[in-house]
Amino acid sequence: MLTMPIPEYLSEILDNVRAHTSGEVADYIPELKSANPHPLAVALCTVDGHIYSSGDDEIEFTMQSISKPFAYALALQECGPTEVFAAVAVEPSGEAFNELSLDGENRPMNPMINAGAIAINQLINGADSTVEDRVEKLRKYFSELAGRELTIDRVLAESELGAADRNMSIAHMLRNYGVIEDEAHDAVLSYTLQCAIKVTARDLAVMTATLAAGGTHPITGKKLLDARVCRLTLSVMASAGMYDEAGQWLSTVGIPAKSGVAGGLIGILPGQLGIATFSPRLNAKGNSVRGVEIFKQLSDDMGLHLMSTEPVSGHAVRSITREGDTTFIRMQGAMNFSASESFLHAIVEHKFQGNLVVLDLSRVLTFHSVAIRMIKEGLKRIRDAGFEVAILDPDDVLPDVRFSDGTVCSQIT
Amino acid sequence: MLTMPIPEYLSEILDNVRAHTSGEVADYIPELKSANPHPLAVALCTVDGHIYSSGDDEIEFTMQSISKPFAYALALQECGPTEVFAAVAVEPSGEAFNELSLDGENRPMNPMINAGAIAINQLINGADSTVEDRVEKLRKYFSELAGRELTIDRVLAESELGAADRNMSIAHMLRNYGVIEDEAHDAVLSYTLQCAIKVTARDLAVMTATLAAGGTHPITGKKLLDARVCRLTLSVMASAGMYDEAGQWLSTVGIPAKSGVAGGLIGILPGQLGIATFSPRLNAKGNSVRGVEIFKQLSDDMGLHLMSTEPVSGHAVRSITREGDTTFIRMQGAMNFSASESFLHAIVEHKFQGNLVVLDLSRVLTFHSVAIRMIKEGLKRIRDAGFEVAILDPDDVLPDVRFSDGTVCSQIT
Amino acid sequence: MLTMPIPEYLSEILDNVRAHTSGEVADYIPELKSANPHPLAVALCTVDGHIYSSGDDEIEFTMQSISKPFAYALALQECGPTEVFAAVAVEPSGEAFNELSLDGENRPMNPMINAGAIAINQLINGADSTVEDRVEKLRKYFSELAGRELTIDRVLAESELGAADRNMSIAHMLRNYGVIEDEAHDAVLSYTLQCAIKVTARDLAVMTATLAAGGTHPITGKKLLDARVCRLTLSVMASAGMYDEAGQWLSTVGIPAKSGVAGGLIGILPGQLGIATFSPRLNAKGNSVRGVEIFKQLSDDMGLHLMSTEPVSGHAVRSITREGDTTFIRMQGAMNFSASESFLHAIVEHKFQGNLVVLDLSRVLTFHSVAIRMIKEGLKRIRDAGFEVAILDPDDVLPDVRFSDGTVCSQIT
Amino acid sequence: MLTMPIPEYLSEILDNVRAHTSGEVADYIPELKSANPHPLAVALCTVDGHIYSSGDDEIEFTMQSISKPFAYALALQECGPTEVFAAVAVEPSGEAFNELSLDGENRPMNPMINAGAIAINQLINGADSTVEDRVEKLRKYFSELAGRELTIDRVLAESELGAADRNMSIAHMLRNYGVIEDEAHDAVLSYTLQCAIKVTARDLAVMTATLAAGGTHPITGKKLLDARVCRLTLSVMASAGMYDEAGQWLSTVGIPAKSGVAGGLIGILPGQLGIATFSPRLNAKGNSVRGVEIFKQLSDDMGLHLMSTEPVSGHAVRSITREGDTTFIRMQGAMNFSASESFLHAIVEHKFQGNLVVLDLSRVLTFHSVAIRMIKEGLKRIRDAGFEVAILDPDDVLPDVRFSDGTVCSQIT
Repeated sequence: MLTMPIPEYLSEILDNVRAHTSGEVADYIPELKSANPHPLAVALCTVDGHIYSSGDDEIEFTMQSISKPFAYALALQECGPTEVFAAVAVEPSGEAFNELSLDGENRPMNPMINAGAIAINQLINGADSTVEDRVEKLRKYFSELAGRELTIDRVLAESELGAADRNMSIAHMLRNYGVIEDEAHDAVLSYTLQCAIKVTARDLAVMTATLAAGGTHPITGKKLLDARVCRLTLSVMASAGMYDEAGQWLSTVGIPAKSGVAGGLIGILPGQLGIATFSPRLNAKGNSVRGVEIFKQLSDDMGLHLMSTEPVSGHAVRSITREGDTTFIRMQGAMNFSASESFLHAIVEHKFQGNLVVLDLSRVLTFHSVAIRMIKEGLKRIRDAGFEVAILDPDDVLPDVRFSDGTVCSQIT
Repeated sequence: MLTMPIPEYLSEILDNVRAHTSGEVADYIPELKSANPHPLAVALCTVDGHIYSSGDDEIEFTMQSISKPFAYALALQECGPTEVFAAVAVEPSGEAFNELSLDGENRPMNPMINAGAIAINQLINGADSTVEDRVEKLRKYFSELAGRELTIDRVLAESELGAADRNMSIAHMLRNYGVIEDEAHDAVLSYTLQCAIKVTARDLAVMTATLAAGGTHPITGKKLLDARVCRLTLSVMASAGMYDEAGQWLSTVGIPAKSGVAGGLIGILPGQLGIATFSPRLNAKGNSVRGVEIFKQLSDDMGLHLMSTEPVSGHAVRSITREGDTTFIRMQGAMNFSASESFLHAIVEHKFQGNLVVLDLSRVLTFHSVAIRMIKEGLKRIRDAGFEVAILDPDDVLPDVRFSDGTVCSQIT
Repeated sequence: MLTMPIPEYLSEILDNVRAHTSGEVADYIPELKSANPHPLAVALCTVDGHIYSSGDDEIEFTMQSISKPFAYALALQECGPTEVFAAVAVEPSGEAFNELSLDGENRPMNPMINAGAIAINQLINGADSTVEDRVEKLRKYFSELAGRELTIDRVLAESELGAADRNMSIAHMLRNYGVIEDEAHDAVLSYTLQCAIKVTARDLAVMTATLAAGGTHPITGKKLLDARVCRLTLSVMASAGMYDEAGQWLSTVGIPAKSGVAGGLIGILPGQLGIATFSPRLNAKGNSVRGVEIFKQLSDDMGLHLMSTEPVSGHAVRSITREGDTTFIRMQGAMNFSASESFLHAIVEHKFQGNLVVLDLSRVLTFHSVAIRMIKEGLKRIRDAGFEVAILDPDDVLPDVRFSDGTVCSQIT
Repeated sequence: MLTMPIPEYLSEILDNVRAHTSGEVADYIPELKSANPHPLAVALCTVDGHIYSSGDDEIEFTMQSISKPFAYALALQECGPTEVFAAVAVEPSGEAFNELSLDGENRPMNPMINAGAIAINQLINGADSTVEDRVEKLRKYFSELAGRELTIDRVLAESELGAADRNMSIAHMLRNYGVIEDEAHDAVLSYTLQCAIKVTARDLAVMTATLAAGGTHPITGKKLLDARVCRLTLSVMASAGMYDEAGQWLSTVGIPAKSGVAGGLIGILPGQLGIATFSPRLNAKGNSVRGVEIFKQLSDDMGLHLMSTEPVSGHAVRSITREGDTTFIRMQGAMNFSASESFLHAIVEHKFQGNLVVLDLSRVLTFHSVAIRMIKEGLKRIRDAGFEVAILDPDDVLPDVRFSDGTVCSQIT
């Protein structure tokens, strides 16, 4: 049997970072302080549901702040962007411990800082929900994302509550400004239980891949979130996910990300894959030392930087050739705005001869709606210039074979 | 002759926003205050050098803050990231008028605020440069990006200098902290002249497309910037380009952007295209009212959001079929990490029979380096499992036809 | 019988300000919102225990923030300045609702803002005290200052607790930084009960006069506080008592002061008198509108500005005359540093003749310790110059009739 | 001849602090960096013009920030408080190097920070003044206060200008906000020359004593400033003179003060005396290390704390006695509000008999206006109760011998 080299590649990366033993495990509660600092794991999940992992990928740890983007996505899905934006802004900010974490309209600056995350948690399951119902909704939703029943570390949550002055202070501030209505204690309890949901690095990779895939679960294929919700969640991870290092992270790693104090770190390549790492030792900023290293390496090695300027579609017009009276326009790749522009550009430049023009879509992979519109318009112009037009689309990638004026275009096979 | 629908589409967009007559032209100097508020233009330039524009696309205006990302790119190219990062950080920040615009190491927060832009300007042409030499270097470089000789509006620059207390205050602050060494007056003069370089919307689209194309000029094909420089420039535009609305802009428009007080606005889709608009009336945040509207519409219509989760490569493995003793693996589209993962996944799952395996690359557009490595590794594993392996690559998209162990792979045609 | 004009003067002042009906009663809890806005009172108490008042001087209201300086004085008296300064700083600050209310050592900026006042409250009766014991200690101490049994408005306190998110947020922040150790709820309960102690304007005048008198109760004569404690309390009232208007208040009124949200306002002239007003309508800064007016008028009319440059002691050396062989030096007024300097200056300038020098202290009122030391030294120098020296001190104002070298000086009667 | 012990006392204090050799001379320009760190001086000047000094009291140094309160007083005297308050606020603030040094109305927070001091300097001699005329006005005025022609250290000023980025930045910020209108360079030049006026510790003591004396020069007796101007100047020194240690200084030393970077430090006891010290080594806050020590000692030893609660007037009613039909009321000390209250209290309590009441003022030193009014009212009430009233005032301390209704009171001798 063939074996898969990606896990070997991931193991190599783990070997590269294993020597980084600097940093300390979080120590503000006994349960975290006594955590084993040694585990190390990395996991990827593609939008097609292929999972690769290496290291201690089955060790459970609590999500902590990594729960924030998922709860944000659920709130957007449940309440809609209008209600969510009215409660929490999306501007970058350090995790300041005070009213500076609120903007001019007394909204938390973004959902990635605790003030915003507590406010988002309160949107889940309606303002009248009990704590248990709200947390159960989150647990079920996170479980559906992970593809297995997740559990809550209630012992750790209890311990967190005993050291929750920071969050209690924030919750009372939010109540004071009318951002939340629930009792401060209940709001913090609810948020703390959300943070205490236990996952493995593999779970996180799968959960994250759903965001990368525009809301379709990579394994079950179930549509869990709108594409717009995913886009908004990724946007806020990009601008605010790494606290006051957001700009540095975007420049050097270029992957929307979020870290948790228990040692987890996730990242997302829109349309491609979800990434998760686990290593409990944290740097001074509270991010996993080895997790950060792994992301840097993956970004460099794998060309995963969001601002990568490599052409995404290549030459969309593969060729324009004439055979007798027929001109063949052969398209290839994914048809997005750029590709359809290439098409339009080519047909305007081309001196058509003969009487039939065939658009060959047999090498086309996908169609973005703007491309459909523009290519139909191009075809209509060819037709209006006096040519017959036919489409060759063996894989039915074009959903609706018409010109831009709505009239039907002929197909050939 | 066929006509191109994209300019018509752009004209439509201009018609949609023409009614927005709110906002005011900048009024802090007579030259800007007396500016004609009516001009309206939009221009696109693809990485292939196709330019589309509509409206007053030949009216010249001063770049102002739009010069910041280009000067930043030049500084990165000239001095390297290490020197540039030592001078200016990359964290988002409001355009605060004070030492809060400096970080803990007394570096300006980012190169998109005036403090950072003045510091970046001083890096150009070396610390010992005269003002005129430095400005001439910038003008020449901007001209090369635009593809024509740009000129400086020295009357406007003179007027700006008469109202430059804000920048003078910043320059003296920078000198006080040792960020710049030049005379404050000269630093402000140099920066003001950089801002007074005149461009049209078309110029800006072309200049911006070079950044989108990883530094290769879309028309001349000349390599002007390293891909890494472009990536860093786009990153800082994404995180800090729109001042204290950076997060909101990233969520709703999702295009790295920069605006200028004379009414210009630019945006970049990495690997795809540059966009520029011009309309002098500004909103309270100092951004062009109609420019912002145009970007919102383009982002919605054309699916240009950076966080778009639509699959970029589609199904990279088009098919695996067997004809007699030969198994054909047909790949398609751009080979990035995701595509090569699909390949590896497919060959591991597939039960190979016969004795020859042919990798058909005839529908493949481009190869990212990670994909080359991974596909070569996959081929080696097929070979090691006892099969003959051959590559069909009519367009020579794979630069080097070898297995991952360096041995040569056979080719068929 | 003669009648006293001071109450008439105070009534006149009340009449002058009665027309000021702007401002609003505090409205964050029903009990304050429904308060009668009309009452108006002013009361003075001299360090000799003479009380003057006018208006609704017997209406009870809750102390609220006016309790802060008294609790601070009690903490200084109980724990000593070292422990108190370690917990709370003394720098002016606005009443910011966040960690900005803490200084670089995480101490609340001063005891007049809520963060500082909650921390001070926790110092009373030891860290292990129950809430009830701590509050009872404060109530008893405030009662002793007022000269009658004060009671706590527990209904109002209960209502305050229902709207105490601001203070709860602060208390949790203080716990987070280790400033306080008690449960946040208990700390806020304890502070809220302190604030809910009920007083009249007359009570406040008496309580305040004790601070003016260096800690000696003006009526009972009981020594309740050290002079140093009073000096420190007055200092912090002067620099931080009026929140972010502290400087304006010091310039225009010049009286260390503190206001409460129920409408009270107190002020202190060190060594002279305590002042209290009551009128519930507050300005935007939360200070009693008419109370502020009364203080302005009293300061103007009565020359009570702390920075008043009118000479406090006048010509301390009333005369130097010679009768035969005897030279009489007649001193007058309070002997402070300035007065003793006048004495020394005079004897150095004077050409003594004859053989006896008599220091006549019959017009001297009091002696500051520095004056005792300096005057004894002066007498010694006269003696060392060859003269006989005698003291005439019919009222025994000089505690110990000796030269600075410890030898006894003769007295005459 | 007798010798004066005060200089000996001052020498003792200098000896006590001489060992404090910590701290560093200011080093931002060569002229200050190369200053001799060893000089040590202290000087006092009473409101009566007696000067005492010890140490290097004749060494000249530049005033630097010590010039601020004197320039503020001159601006108040020239322009009046309304215009001055419109330009500069009086609230405490750290010496922040940015717009945070401006309040909500874009006024510098107070005249003791550089932003405020530069704005105050611009008020002197009118907005249209040349720099030289403005500086000459300040020099002449400072010379008049010092009692000798002061000169400007133009070499040092020149050097300061070469390192004036901080002040230049502030001046441009002030221009940007319309606080000043002059060229930034001229404003900084003017302020820098003001700071470069040279004084000795003795000069400063004399200058400061004029503020203590309500504006009357202690030696020439010339009225240079209104009492109100002095009160306002002292107020702002008390609340903002020691930057972000203002509260600590007020608590521990309790003397309105101002320090300069060349090593000077001044303090003022209203109505009593001016104090100046000189020692160039500065602590981290920029205050003279030994100067601070001297002030602490003087405050402790000499009872000079502003919040001192020692009674200032003592028992104003020395006695009430009857001889036959005549009742003698003997007053003593300075007649302020407290004293007159004592008088009123006494006559209301007293059961008058006989038919003549004599008010004996022969031990009275001074009369505050409120006391005149109240004592006249008291006499009227005695008269209205049916008694004859006469005043014994051998020293004519009561300016106008009438009852409160304007009728003339009889006098006896």
